[in-house]
Amino acid sequence: MIAEKVMTTKEIANRLSELFKENKWDQAQDELFSPDARSIEPPHAVGLQSVQGMPAIKKKGADFNSMVEEMHGGWVGEPIVAGNHIAVTMGMDATMKGAGRLKMEEIALYEVKDGKIVSEQFFY
Amino acid sequence: MIAEKVMTTKEIANRLSELFKENKWDQAQDELFSPDARSIEPPHAVGLQSVQGMPAIKKKGADFNSMVEEMHGGWVGEPIVAGNHIAVTMGMDATMKGAGRLKMEEIALYEVKDGKIVSEQFFY
Repeated sequence: MIAEKVMTTKEIANRLSELFKENKWDQAQDELFSPDARSIEPPHAVGLQSVQGMPAIKKKGADFNSMVEEMHGGWVGEPIVAGNHIAVTMGMDATMKGAGRLKMEEIALYEVKDGKIVSEQFFY
Repeated sequence: MIAEKVMTTKEIANRLSELFKENKWDQAQDELFSPDARSIEPPHAVGLQSVQGMPAIKKKGADFNSMVEEMHGGWVGEPIVAGNHIAVTMGMDATMKGAGRLKMEEIALYEVKDGKIVSEQFFY
């Protein structure tokens, strides 16, 4: 029998922050997300939809990357944790194909269940 | 003509945090909230509903207070800010009427527009 240790929300927040700061977004999803996680965009999102399941989340990431002409910079803040939720600030400065340069900031909010991230929701 | 200065999201976050730490919840609403602000609870909330408008938000607060038999303690974390959003952790330890002692933690997320909070959303 192999007992797999379930990560606490605080441990997930720390690992998420570590991977984000190393720009390892895919690895963060692979390590920390539940297979049926949801990704929720605000109602006013342009070109990005709310989706569920890792295949759809991976496709959403690839679609976003394909809209970027050049990434000039980005940053991620320190996460805050309460109960089974994590919030973290992040920002980016990118030239989007056909849409010019975009500087944006957002709060990403994560819900954890049984040691995995079951939803990410973006506020901008 | 009196020009009223519009507060930045960062200024609102600082003032909100200051008032919360002084336990001045009503004053925070009176000073910082838009008259038609929304207050959003999670789908699984018990005894609390999502509402819109300050009268409904005030009533929600009063209803919650009427469910508390004794408040043993509470805490509020440091707010994080990105764009027009603020997130802050908070917790409380209270005995609820007929429901025993409840320790809970949550992330509260605020959206700011034109120098006022237009929504508060709770994640727990």
